[in-house]
Amino acid sequence: MVPGTTGKILRVNLTDRRVSVDEPDDLFYRRYLGGAGFIGYYLLKEVKPGTDPLSPDNILIFALGPMTGTPMPGGSRNSVGAKSPLSGGVAKSEVGGFFGYELKRAGYDSLIVEGRADTPVYLWIHDGEVEIKDARQLWGTTVLETQDAIEAELGERFVRTATIGPAGENMAGISCIITDLRNAAGRGGTGAVMGSKNLKSVAVKGRTVPQPADRDKFREMAQCMNRNYMNIGNAASFHEFGTGTAAAMIGGNSIGNLPVRNWGDGTFDEVAKITADAVKETVSVGMEACPACQVRCKKVVELENDSYKVDRRNGGPEYETLAAFGSFLGIDDLDAICRANELCSLYSLDTISTGGTIVFAMGCFENEILTPSDTGCLDLRFGNADAMLQAIDLIARREGIGDILADGSRKAAERIGRGAEEFSMQVKGVELGMHEPRLKQGLGLLYSVALNGGDHMVGIHDTAFTQEGAGMATVRQIGAMDPLPANDLSAAKVSMAKGYHLMRLFADSMVICHFVPWTLNQHVEMLRALTGWDFTAVEALKIGERVATMSRVFNLREGLTAADDVLPKRFFSPTPRGALKDTAIDPEAMSTAIHTFYNMMGWDPETGVPTQEKLEELGIAWAGSHIAVAS
Amino acid sequence: MVPGTTGKILRVNLTDRRVSVDEPDDLFYRRYLGGAGFIGYYLLKEVKPGTDPLSPDNILIFALGPMTGTPMPGGSRNSVGAKSPLSGGVAKSEVGGFFGYELKRAGYDSLIVEGRADTPVYLWIHDGEVEIKDARQLWGTTVLETQDAIEAELGERFVRTATIGPAGENMAGISCIITDLRNAAGRGGTGAVMGSKNLKSVAVKGRTVPQPADRDKFREMAQCMNRNYMNIGNAASFHEFGTGTAAAMIGGNSIGNLPVRNWGDGTFDEVAKITADAVKETVSVGMEACPACQVRCKKVVELENDSYKVDRRNGGPEYETLAAFGSFLGIDDLDAICRANELCSLYSLDTISTGGTIVFAMGCFENEILTPSDTGCLDLRFGNADAMLQAIDLIARREGIGDILADGSRKAAERIGRGAEEFSMQVKGVELGMHEPRLKQGLGLLYSVALNGGDHMVGIHDTAFTQEGAGMATVRQIGAMDPLPANDLSAAKVSMAKGYHLMRLFADSMVICHFVPWTLNQHVEMLRALTGWDFTAVEALKIGERVATMSRVFNLREGLTAADDVLPKRFFSPTPRGALKDTAIDPEAMSTAIHTFYNMMGWDPETGVPTQEKLEELGIAWAGSHIAVAS
Repeated sequence: MVPGTTGKILRVNLTDRRVSVDEPDDLFYRRYLGGAGFIGYYLLKEVKPGTDPLSPDNILIFALGPMTGTPMPGGSRNSVGAKSPLSGGVAKSEVGGFFGYELKRAGYDSLIVEGRADTPVYLWIHDGEVEIKDARQLWGTTVLETQDAIEAELGERFVRTATIGPAGENMAGISCIITDLRNAAGRGGTGAVMGSKNLKSVAVKGRTVPQPADRDKFREMAQCMNRNYMNIGNAASFHEFGTGTAAAMIGGNSIGNLPVRNWGDGTFDEVAKITADAVKETVSVGMEACPACQVRCKKVVELENDSYKVDRRNGGPEYETLAAFGSFLGIDDLDAICRANELCSLYSLDTISTGGTIVFAMGCFENEILTPSDTGCLDLRFGNADAMLQAIDLIARREGIGDILADGSRKAAERIGRGAEEFSMQVKGVELGMHEPRLKQGLGLLYSVALNGGDHMVGIHDTAFTQEGAGMATVRQIGAMDPLPANDLSAAKVSMAKGYHLMRLFADSMVICHFVPWTLNQHVEMLRALTGWDFTAVEALKIGERVATMSRVFNLREGLTAADDVLPKRFFSPTPRGALKDTAIDPEAMSTAIHTFYNMMGWDPETGVPTQEKLEELGIAWAGSHIAVAS
Repeated sequence: MVPGTTGKILRVNLTDRRVSVDEPDDLFYRRYLGGAGFIGYYLLKEVKPGTDPLSPDNILIFALGPMTGTPMPGGSRNSVGAKSPLSGGVAKSEVGGFFGYELKRAGYDSLIVEGRADTPVYLWIHDGEVEIKDARQLWGTTVLETQDAIEAELGERFVRTATIGPAGENMAGISCIITDLRNAAGRGGTGAVMGSKNLKSVAVKGRTVPQPADRDKFREMAQCMNRNYMNIGNAASFHEFGTGTAAAMIGGNSIGNLPVRNWGDGTFDEVAKITADAVKETVSVGMEACPACQVRCKKVVELENDSYKVDRRNGGPEYETLAAFGSFLGIDDLDAICRANELCSLYSLDTISTGGTIVFAMGCFENEILTPSDTGCLDLRFGNADAMLQAIDLIARREGIGDILADGSRKAAERIGRGAEEFSMQVKGVELGMHEPRLKQGLGLLYSVALNGGDHMVGIHDTAFTQEGAGMATVRQIGAMDPLPANDLSAAKVSMAKGYHLMRLFADSMVICHFVPWTLNQHVEMLRALTGWDFTAVEALKIGERVATMSRVFNLREGLTAADDVLPKRFFSPTPRGALKDTAIDPEAMSTAIHTFYNMMGWDPETGVPTQEKLEELGIAWAGSHIAVAS
């Protein structure tokens, strides 16, 4: 057994209530590692071609990594994966909190949920034991209510859960899975998959501590980071504010990074009202952390006004959420943003896709594609915070216009017609992260080609690599030698973006947080200390390649093609004002970059289909048979 | 300045006796590193297209690496490079001993020799000072005589030299450069380039010790290897016997690895007489080491018989030499092999190409393509040890048949005609190393595509990767997951061979010995400790790619094409007897593998021309203009 792992993959088939355990060999771990690697592997191997994402034949994977459950700062995360109801391809999302940490300590490296329970259930996994428990009485409750009810029923404290609220139960495509009340495995619609399985929650508790091969080295690295993180990169700022500082958001607004009114404006004058600094000065009641992490980047807010209150147990808004419910919608009401964030926690909605879908509706409404009669008189204008909060309720309950919006802007546009797709700003059905691809064109490339659509975590933020500094120090580790302009799309940029993306996919397989300022070398070093493998950074990127390539094959097999690797049209024109009023993406340069990316990945440069050569190189020749199915 | 380097590249132009120093910036070192990296860079940048290798316009580079001159075991080596008179492309060869070590301590990271002296000279480089000294009285002397004369003239002991003997003076294409009397920078004909410059020797002495950025870590690694090497890989055997043990050679003979009678036989019954064990039992007087290395793999022999004696100062035969003057020629006379080795040290001849050229002549002679009248009555039959020794003399002096053979078997075959090329077993004019490509087909691939022809150091020995074990542990570090048959040429094998080759080219840029059993991870770690860079294994392989790609561009520019990436025909048929009597290389499989290799290198899969995309990725877009010249 590989040190740091349990050697056990737990399977629960809800249809026949069968519980079983796989025990893969050591080389399986070295090849696929965990997290995103496991998701890529199991989806391709086990989900049959053409499976309806919301059918019992889909699987839902809570994939831990070797780092999960250890006391390494940033190592308390897990991935969640399934065939996505939004994209029809891979859904993959990482999440913090205590859930993954506790699941590992309960004895498992991953949990694969198959089938569908005939009535709502939750799982109770504790120190190796697995129980399938009745959740009929929990159906319809919020994530917070479910947490309390489960702890009460079990008579246990500190039970860690991954739970869906009403949005997940109602199989909203933009629903997510919430761990520990306030952390979201946000992207790709895994909440809907969980709902489709009649699985309300997974509750875990465990006491078996993973033992590193080199305990001293491992401990030393953890201690060293905990002593020094304040002096590295953005960690001090994360520690004080979390993401979305005034510096980042006001600065982002001034250079054009901040998304404003559905990427259709260029500047947001009220930005100062919605930054993490503003949060800290007004509604913040502190910061919270994942296990063993002293960065403590998670805002906690509490407030009460005439209309609503926000409970601190439901967390606070990250940058993505501040932007998605703020500038993106033209909203400067910080209370409302915090409340929207809370509603998403309670209902299990992805804040990015929820913001991105509401802004789509606002775009339609402002352009009279949606009318008050479509919206049930909801006045979906940019800047209307009340309408936003009401829309979130409607989406979670699938009521009125909410039913149309619940599956994200792409499907909503299809249902609405009348040119509505102009306002749907997503890739592969997944709304884009809150970073401007006209400014960061390498990021635009990755938005286009990433396995799971417009994920905000795909990788490179080009503005960090325009001159010597911490950014260049990072990418030099993957062999990128020279700074490049943010809007550059040369082969050098494609290579840098590709390398960065693969680093991310490796980290998502470890699984480890991107906000603890580890370097690639340190990731490799901690994995060596944990597992005892003589592991290298080369292998790290190969794991990233395996993830990207297995996922690519899955997507192709499920009907996605190179035509799906495309940004919304809007990005090929400048913003009407602001820093990017003269800057757009050149469609030809982006197309060239995309095909260069394919080629650099060992995929067919025209079609983006992985070559058999590359599959053999990656030691996943078995995936070739799935390409045959695709073509 | 990068710690561990001097920051200074010394240039000596012999035509106008101008001495100058370049001081490249830190990023230059991180991009090209040293050794093979510097050779790839400077040849492409500074040698004009179409330059005659033996003209003053060629350059001769003594390229050290960051590791050179440090007390790291294996770090006392250097590379030598030039445009090759054998291949017309890159000549690159690594060599041990004290020369590089001392040159670094004399204050320089490399020495580039330009132009041609009007009369013979030697260089005296000591503690930063450079003198161009008269060598007219040394011309025509052996390497040993030159060493003694220089020390006498300078009145110094422990002067370290890189010297040519008569073969180099006579610009024999198969001549090499000898450091410290017994170490050969063997391959590619750099001795002839040195001779063409009227440069007899470079003598060095220095006292400036390179200072690692992390001195404790660096020292700890060195000490750890010196304590433990006996327990790692083949090092204990290298320590006791050097290369070419009975186990290796008798075993190699039994599985078909040993070259016998110009790759035309399949087994050598007398193999036990010519192994390192036989050396140890008979003529050995001990083992010698490079600075700071306790592996001490270098045989020292001494003998006297009726016909000749062998002086211990001239070293002893490595495996390549035992094979090249032994089984390869059908010779089982160990005394004669040791004498041949000594003659090559004295005259500055590459033992592999010398054996390979004599065996070519023997093949021609046995088949009556050469007759006694061609050979001056030299009876060039397989097994004739006297004829071998006489041939070496003739080659060094360019007398009789020796003049034809002095430029290697390819040129000799061209001059002889009459189908002689059948017996010329080389790639790009460089005779193959003593490992059988029919058995080790990944090695056969690398022989075909390597920048410097049939170099024995190109990389992978497939037999080490057919099952789990130390070999797989090595290649798993480059992401190769699964053992493969030795004769496999799948994309997985190509990838493994490519990765291994790039590791070697990185090590040749560091510069560090392949016989000290460091892992890739340790190479990276020692470079980090030395330079202070946050360097990764990914960067290591990128440096390997840069070397291979710059050298490829150089070769293409100088007229080599994909048609030069081809093994001699003989390997596409089995041996008449022995372990490989039913095993040959499938020409189609090899051709596919070669084109797969091109593709995996980011070279055009048909033509092997590096794509501009790849050049940009590697941060060497400047090399593109040289491709334009090529096409």
